[in-house]
Amino acid sequence: MTNWQVIEGGVTAPKGFRAAGIAAGLKPSGSPDLALIVSDSEASAAGVFTTSQVRAACVDYCQDLLEGKSSARAILCNAGQANACTGEQGMEDAIASAKAAAQALNLPAESVMIASTGVIGQRIKMDALLAGIPTVVKELSAEGGDNAAQAIVTTDLVTKSIALETQIGDRPVRIGGIAKGSGMIHPNMATMLAFVTCDAAVSGQLWQDMLRRATAKSFNQITVDGDTSTNDCLLALANGESRTPAITTPGPEADKLEAMLTEVCIHLAKSIARDGEGATCLVEVAVSGAMSDRAAGQIARTVAGSSLVKSAIFGRDPNWGRIAGAAGRAGTPFEQSELSISLGDFTLMQAGTPQAFDRVAASDYLKQQSERSSLAMSKILLKSTQQANDLVPPDEQANEQADGQTLARQSQAIEALAHPVVITIGVGDGPGVGKAWGCDLSYDYVKINAEYTT
Amino acid sequence: MTNWQVIEGGVTAPKGFRAAGIAAGLKPSGSPDLALIVSDSEASAAGVFTTSQVRAACVDYCQDLLEGKSSARAILCNAGQANACTGEQGMEDAIASAKAAAQALNLPAESVMIASTGVIGQRIKMDALLAGIPTVVKELSAEGGDNAAQAIVTTDLVTKSIALETQIGDRPVRIGGIAKGSGMIHPNMATMLAFVTCDAAVSGQLWQDMLRRATAKSFNQITVDGDTSTNDCLLALANGESRTPAITTPGPEADKLEAMLTEVCIHLAKSIARDGEGATCLVEVAVSGAMSDRAAGQIARTVAGSSLVKSAIFGRDPNWGRIAGAAGRAGTPFEQSELSISLGDFTLMQAGTPQAFDRVAASDYLKQQSERSSLAMSKILLKSTQQANDLVPPDEQANEQADGQTLARQSQAIEALAHPVVITIGVGDGPGVGKAWGCDLSYDYVKINAEYTT
Repeated sequence: MTNWQVIEGGVTAPKGFRAAGIAAGLKPSGSPDLALIVSDSEASAAGVFTTSQVRAACVDYCQDLLEGKSSARAILCNAGQANACTGEQGMEDAIASAKAAAQALNLPAESVMIASTGVIGQRIKMDALLAGIPTVVKELSAEGGDNAAQAIVTTDLVTKSIALETQIGDRPVRIGGIAKGSGMIHPNMATMLAFVTCDAAVSGQLWQDMLRRATAKSFNQITVDGDTSTNDCLLALANGESRTPAITTPGPEADKLEAMLTEVCIHLAKSIARDGEGATCLVEVAVSGAMSDRAAGQIARTVAGSSLVKSAIFGRDPNWGRIAGAAGRAGTPFEQSELSISLGDFTLMQAGTPQAFDRVAASDYLKQQSERSSLAMSKILLKSTQQANDLVPPDEQANEQADGQTLARQSQAIEALAHPVVITIGVGDGPGVGKAWGCDLSYDYVKINAEYTT
Repeated sequence: MTNWQVIEGGVTAPKGFRAAGIAAGLKPSGSPDLALIVSDSEASAAGVFTTSQVRAACVDYCQDLLEGKSSARAILCNAGQANACTGEQGMEDAIASAKAAAQALNLPAESVMIASTGVIGQRIKMDALLAGIPTVVKELSAEGGDNAAQAIVTTDLVTKSIALETQIGDRPVRIGGIAKGSGMIHPNMATMLAFVTCDAAVSGQLWQDMLRRATAKSFNQITVDGDTSTNDCLLALANGESRTPAITTPGPEADKLEAMLTEVCIHLAKSIARDGEGATCLVEVAVSGAMSDRAAGQIARTVAGSSLVKSAIFGRDPNWGRIAGAAGRAGTPFEQSELSISLGDFTLMQAGTPQAFDRVAASDYLKQQSERSSLAMSKILLKSTQQANDLVPPDEQANEQADGQTLARQSQAIEALAHPVVITIGVGDGPGVGKAWGCDLSYDYVKINAEYTT
């Protein structure tokens, strides 16, 4: 039911949204680090936040804000400092950031949502942020989606951005989204952030429900290293500027919008998994035959998150034993005599019994999927030094911007996700289906996470 | 309350137990692969098994057996083939193995418990096993504990064995235990196995309850890679040959026995964690101030299992942000303003706020603990080629036995666990405390698990 098409523009593809991303001096590298997304009119606002007990000030701030009201106008995001584990002062900084952006936009403070990413334990460089706000407001434009996408990354190798369009009541409706990196990525760097814009007219509560369900099928089904961050946050605005009929109750229109929202979230989630630290490929695990979708999703997530399965994929080893082992420990019951496992087109296990298969060809499949995906990734890499440089002095760095070939970048980004390693698992004849995404576990994961020695 | 002492002998230290380990030709390497532990008299029998939905035949066999009766006489264990994912035939082989051992011991079949470890999807080499049984029975001796410990390993670098002695009713009571390697270790190799013997007189139900609680504080609190295996199994026999007063109800005597049993299990569990794939050190996480012991244990386990924390320790990086992040996502609520974190003697975080500390000295602490522990490990390494050779033809292999310096080996094994990296976490003023153990995540973990390509 792919009744939508990919369009240009990311978060500024939907009508009535402007965005900007600037280098405000928050990151040592001098690369973009302050993003602003603004809706021209009041928008239904929804959010999903980290479940961690250790939360950044911005997470508490937005959660409180959305409990009081279900609409907003803007999202301000800084990269460089996570503003987590910063105590009372952290919350004061968060409030001051929102207030400053609201003032510059001539909005009430409670219309601005905020997000932070960067080093845990560091306060936002408030001088730089406050000085940057007038500039980022001035830079706002209906073509600013890609700039915003670049200003929210930290250690990401590529930006994550997508926009889709469908028809509601014979008029176009669009959803755009941007995201940044997976799990607790770099030493001391934290956060998965995603921001979604939409020009449909949808009630706040319905929008929140849709976002929650879409998250369950996307961001909650990816795993890089199993580590939830202090700052994880997904914010979504729907402003009605498409002038399509208002969606206020469940029904076919709502379903259509939710399907497209889910697709946007899945694209961003897969992008994050593919860009996991040290990853050489995207892994997709599809489970069917479980008692429920929840059970299937849990099995899929467990297999995608297994260090042993991930290592085997990096080693191009079609190791069904590890897949069976991970499925078995997922905490959801099934009969092992009904377990089937395929890798791409290779059947590895049927009815709980290992099958004969061409191991060399299966290994080649793993290799080939990685090569295809890596080729596309290599074409959209951000300046590779940019992120590493965020921990070293700026004067040692080049400061070149990524090129502006937006169109090529977007199709390559889609191409990079088009060749996942597919693991298909059947666990019985139940109705439950679910998917999860992850990446392989390489030497580089350990290297990236161990080499920042004190 | 350390009212026990370490003694020699492993599983044959308790009175009335004999054991043996022989090379029966199940492993390609020709190294020991068949172990037998026998009690001279009927013993209270207890077991704890993998919670995986994908279970080896031996697990189902023992679970069924212990549901019918709470006593047994013997444990037969083969290494080389896991007999998991082997269907009906696997169960027939399991039954035949138990029956053959029982016959040779002149016991009813239901007096013999069985365990398997090795390659998933492979049947036990029944010809070799059946041919080996008369030999392993003939080799049974009251000094055979170490031989049994050697015959159950697969990819372990060292054997795991311990025996403790205490007094009950003014008479000595002993508990011995052996174990093998952590998680789903080698490509296609599976299993954590542990066997415990005891010469106290304790009722079957009480013994089972003690074992379950001891497991919760030991084997269930270790993590190497988060992968539960198809064959995980802990079996315990208590035969009463110490002639001490029978323990049939909870009380001080029962508590004393349980404390010692728990200590045996903790030693074996820590040994497994220290010998985790690629590990360079043992990591101990101690949590206090939680709402309950369960909550504290869960936080401890989550921190010990975090890939990011483990990578940081390998990188000798005192990275409190990752520890805080892992604690926060453990799924148990606490106030982040009450979070405190120490690494060895270094206070990294207090009342939710990062503290100034000597990063170089803290990094040195990580390095030093690893070096101390590695030195002890190096003195007790099994012939290093033995395990790797289990996947290659025997004619390419040396076949030398490990030396017999049992005494030195035992004290070095204890020394190898005496220098853990200690992470201490406070989460409030609740009564709950808990510990967990793991190891660091090194390049070698990825290497070991990725390099077995097809």
